[in-house]
Amino acid sequence: MAEKSARSLYPYERRNFTEFVDHFSFAPSQEFNLTYLISTEEWKPGGPILFYTGNEGLIDHFAQNTGFMFELAKILSGAVIFAEHRYYGTSLPFGSRSFLDRNHFGFLTAEQALADYAKFISDFKCANRQFSNSPVISFGGSYGGMLTAWFRQAYPNIVAGGLASSAPIWLFPGMADCRGFYQVTTRAYRQAGGDTCISTIREVWSLMDDIAAERGLASLSGLFKTCRPFPNGDFIYEFTKDYLITLAMANYPYSASFLGNLPAWPVKVCSFRISYVEYIRSSEENCLSFDGNSTNLDAKGWELQTCMEMTNPICSDGKSDMFKPSTWDPIEFSNACQRKFGVRPRMGWAGVQWWAKNLYTVTRLIFSNGDLDPWSAFGVLEKELVPGATVVRIASGAHHLDLRGSHPNDTAEVRAARSLITNHINSWINAWHREAHPLYCLDF
Amino acid sequence: MAEKSARSLYPYERRNFTEFVDHFSFAPSQEFNLTYLISTEEWKPGGPILFYTGNEGLIDHFAQNTGFMFELAKILSGAVIFAEHRYYGTSLPFGSRSFLDRNHFGFLTAEQALADYAKFISDFKCANRQFSNSPVISFGGSYGGMLTAWFRQAYPNIVAGGLASSAPIWLFPGMADCRGFYQVTTRAYRQAGGDTCISTIREVWSLMDDIAAERGLASLSGLFKTCRPFPNGDFIYEFTKDYLITLAMANYPYSASFLGNLPAWPVKVCSFRISYVEYIRSSEENCLSFDGNSTNLDAKGWELQTCMEMTNPICSDGKSDMFKPSTWDPIEFSNACQRKFGVRPRMGWAGVQWWAKNLYTVTRLIFSNGDLDPWSAFGVLEKELVPGATVVRIASGAHHLDLRGSHPNDTAEVRAARSLITNHINSWINAWHREAHPLYCLDF
Repeated sequence: MAEKSARSLYPYERRNFTEFVDHFSFAPSQEFNLTYLISTEEWKPGGPILFYTGNEGLIDHFAQNTGFMFELAKILSGAVIFAEHRYYGTSLPFGSRSFLDRNHFGFLTAEQALADYAKFISDFKCANRQFSNSPVISFGGSYGGMLTAWFRQAYPNIVAGGLASSAPIWLFPGMADCRGFYQVTTRAYRQAGGDTCISTIREVWSLMDDIAAERGLASLSGLFKTCRPFPNGDFIYEFTKDYLITLAMANYPYSASFLGNLPAWPVKVCSFRISYVEYIRSSEENCLSFDGNSTNLDAKGWELQTCMEMTNPICSDGKSDMFKPSTWDPIEFSNACQRKFGVRPRMGWAGVQWWAKNLYTVTRLIFSNGDLDPWSAFGVLEKELVPGATVVRIASGAHHLDLRGSHPNDTAEVRAARSLITNHINSWINAWHREAHPLYCLDF
Repeated sequence: MAEKSARSLYPYERRNFTEFVDHFSFAPSQEFNLTYLISTEEWKPGGPILFYTGNEGLIDHFAQNTGFMFELAKILSGAVIFAEHRYYGTSLPFGSRSFLDRNHFGFLTAEQALADYAKFISDFKCANRQFSNSPVISFGGSYGGMLTAWFRQAYPNIVAGGLASSAPIWLFPGMADCRGFYQVTTRAYRQAGGDTCISTIREVWSLMDDIAAERGLASLSGLFKTCRPFPNGDFIYEFTKDYLITLAMANYPYSASFLGNLPAWPVKVCSFRISYVEYIRSSEENCLSFDGNSTNLDAKGWELQTCMEMTNPICSDGKSDMFKPSTWDPIEFSNACQRKFGVRPRMGWAGVQWWAKNLYTVTRLIFSNGDLDPWSAFGVLEKELVPGATVVRIASGAHHLDLRGSHPNDTAEVRAARSLITNHINSWINAWHREAHPLYCLDF
């Protein structure tokens, strides 16, 4: 499969770097090991360091699904580094106690993660002086794309430029219409199957309710081939909704295992069932498990982040989208976080820290989005507010399609996007080499 | 006196704002009250907010010595706000226990202080919507100037531009020659009194040693009119050296009480004694106390900061400067911090966090320095590394002279500097009004 071959085509080495748990206070003195993957096979002196700002999952997962960086390394004689996000994969600040309480998980913030990356790169260059003349280009998809944008904003001394792919930087309360996410999901299905598709899905919701009411939940569990019975009716709806969203996010022109094993163009209306069957077949138990982590992402860590600084309102009106109407209430959300984790979100903070829609000073940054990616609802789609950045839109593109390795089935649109991105990165590298960028190292 | 009149000329109101002790983690949940001073008398709709990023001392002290901001408020129809730095004045995060141990003083970092300011301004604008169309221009002198530079770097969404006056942003290990500080001090004295002045001061050092050895420390204490005897010989040297440095920093063209009560041009070689007599006379006890805080700055808090992230190597070779040779050893310094406060500095961190000499992306920022200010040794004096910023140098200027209110004795140089600075600030304000700057507020 495409993803596994990426690993064998571009082998990397696994290493560790010591980080402070808290970069911004001197109260605690704990340190932990951050995992990173590195490949220097293609690197030549002066060539860039292509750096992935890891997001919510095991870092290998992103390395195996970001073939574009390995292809760029070849073109640009670059090194490739994937840094793992703290509290994910093997980068647990307090080992098995990392999620114990807020005194442990409280350091799971974007600021701390970016400080990890900045300190790591700075120390890496000082310890490996052959890279002192290597500009760092940052890459990230989804939350990783948000991190890449913020990385360039906060540390332009470290990062010469960045590709923020499918980055919903405006997912925060008060920054976007909370209905957008489901509206774009609906658009993806409408484009694939027309209005008939939308009305069919709407019918399914009431049909499921009817079956559950008439024949019981067990019969629905049988229909869905679930490993254990659905716990309740709401769960079935939530599960099915999430499944449809996953198909939209991973609606790539070829079979991929990024968010579960899926066929090419899984959203295509007639292939719903095929997608589903393949999805179940690829599971270990040959039945549908909703207990495990089918998406390779760590839902626990991310849920915590939404309860601290990454709160993301999503709602639907049931009219402009194909889902059941649902509201989002900030007080309710905050109370739920308090009950579940003993912490309340600071909903306004990300806007202060990461500039909300005041992005006039941003330069050498690309915001790319697929038009059919649900997350594009919170992304930068117009150049107006980011005059110094580049906005790339990929027609029929799903969730950070551009970051994936090239594939014979790739659309003309994504090929063009990758080519444009490559040109921009090239120009940043050239500009960086024309400027003086004195390395800052302590030599004692 | 000029300073007191500034207060009565421009009355301000004292208020509080609730801040998180830790903005970058969710581990603790403590909050505290940050003090700020506000004057809106001159403000008209659309006029700017002139904001002082408070540094190491009671905030009133800075308000009383930064008359330039009040004069600008008149010209620009601006509001004036002075925000106090956490852990100084009345802004103590843990009250009287704030300096107890690293679990308490550990949050005394520049990042946290800037987050205080960013959150405060953001909330202030949301709570007082009449200011939503008011660009914020930041001001600061010395460490406050470093904060203003970093404020614009980290929060260009909040700050439209800044005047970093006499800001030694490169005071950190590995960023500048540690001899610079004493060299510039020596230059100030040489300019005032020629080579004779320098050799006289050099003679004083051995003379003091001789007197102490022959007649005892008590006789020196008598000569210096100290309130209690000097504890040891080194102390006399350190005290005298610091006194000469203070004169150089406060070498203003008129009498001022910024760093103790001093006459005009206190560095003038023949007025040494006069400066000194006035300095003692103005003290409460009519003798020289070296126990209290003669400079209005909080030495304890600042010493802690140098032991955490603000380490500032200063040394002398005794040849290019008029002082005794002294070295600076990072290991020794770190050990001393560990012994005294139980904390070790992170000497490389400020370079990572605040960009060291990679300032290519900086815009709408002025770095002003007096040529005879010792701290200018660590300041930005050339435009080369800051192509998007403005560099202002004031001949015969002392420590952030430009921030002071205008005075009949002002030199042509400082008048010209203030006029240039005013023009730049005006152009930033105009540019800001031409751009869209959506206010980000949570309305629930």
